[in-house]
Amino acid sequence: MTQPLSSPGSLSAVPIIERAVKQLSKLPGIGPRMAQRLTLALLKRKKEEVQELVDALGQLIDGVNPCPECGNYDQQTPCRICADDQRDRSVICVVEQHQDLIAIERTSQYHGLYHILGGVLSPIDGVGPEEIGIPKLLRRLNEPVREVILATNPTIEGDATAHYIQDASKTLGVRITRLARGLPSGSDIEYADESTLALALSTRSELK
Amino acid sequence: MTQPLSSPGSLSAVPIIERAVKQLSKLPGIGPRMAQRLTLALLKRKKEEVQELVDALGQLIDGVNPCPECGNYDQQTPCRICADDQRDRSVICVVEQHQDLIAIERTSQYHGLYHILGGVLSPIDGVGPEEIGIPKLLRRLNEPVREVILATNPTIEGDATAHYIQDASKTLGVRITRLARGLPSGSDIEYADESTLALALSTRSELK
Repeated sequence: MTQPLSSPGSLSAVPIIERAVKQLSKLPGIGPRMAQRLTLALLKRKKEEVQELVDALGQLIDGVNPCPECGNYDQQTPCRICADDQRDRSVICVVEQHQDLIAIERTSQYHGLYHILGGVLSPIDGVGPEEIGIPKLLRRLNEPVREVILATNPTIEGDATAHYIQDASKTLGVRITRLARGLPSGSDIEYADESTLALALSTRSELK
Repeated sequence: MTQPLSSPGSLSAVPIIERAVKQLSKLPGIGPRMAQRLTLALLKRKKEEVQELVDALGQLIDGVNPCPECGNYDQQTPCRICADDQRDRSVICVVEQHQDLIAIERTSQYHGLYHILGGVLSPIDGVGPEEIGIPKLLRRLNEPVREVILATNPTIEGDATAHYIQDASKTLGVRITRLARGLPSGSDIEYADESTLALALSTRSELK
């Protein structure tokens, strides 16, 4: 699987095809082999269908921008969540990625605002508080905010980032919460990892 | 993993984003979740980088066409393999897909021409000889062709297709061959499937 993809006279020596394969393989989770398969699939498609894909991706370039308030991607500024009068402006949920915002919205249980960090603290990779916009978050907390929900991932990096934000916002008099940790719904205790099970035990709740 | 991706107020309610996700998820091997991940990755990229991808895919639309002779995709007509004087025009290697041509070219062991069927016979799916261009292949065999190598996959469908071509070209006086079958290089006999091992036994070769 590590053989070079191009060889003289082969299909991949066609510059336009090589270029498409190269560009597709820059996408996350798409290796050279998959990129080649996608390119050939596109060549087999009707021209109008490929045009639709090209148009759809082209629109991403100028049609969608991060919200200057929260970092959420939208066609409007501020984004439709920040612009929504119905949402509770006194709660801010801090997430690592846009995917996390989507997941939380999907629960239909949250009606506050968001703040997308775009990453986690990672001193080894040179990612400090500035790089993930923590100063901007802290400025937002100067507005009348009642609660900050730290919804970074339950990982070492996510915990460290949440901890940093907690420390930095201690003096602001805002309630700071973190998503609960424990056994996921529908899971088997038999297969739970030790750390999750230990946490689920130590934070067990009273049945009333 | 089967939850709907869009919900009111969420990121995926942004029409341009929804459109990109929808178009990407039409590609083979890319589900809605992956399409969403790719779209968000593109939104995070520099605009010039996304433009490069869009341009590269756009060029596929009009820049590359199947060769009228063999079906190989190229920017030139006939394709560079058909147009190459150095190639042996008396041998035609019949493959199912372009990927197979690429794989054979990569061996650097074959110097004849190709014929790409673009599929296999599959009466259940309404794919007959016409749909995979077998009449066109048979017309090519009327030219002075010495050998046809049937390089369809060693599967039931590939074998059936090869068999059909063999039958149809019997009267043309052309040598018809099929790629050898047996144990793949570097494999473990222990893990070989029964059919492969049985075939490798029955077609064993004399060591001289």
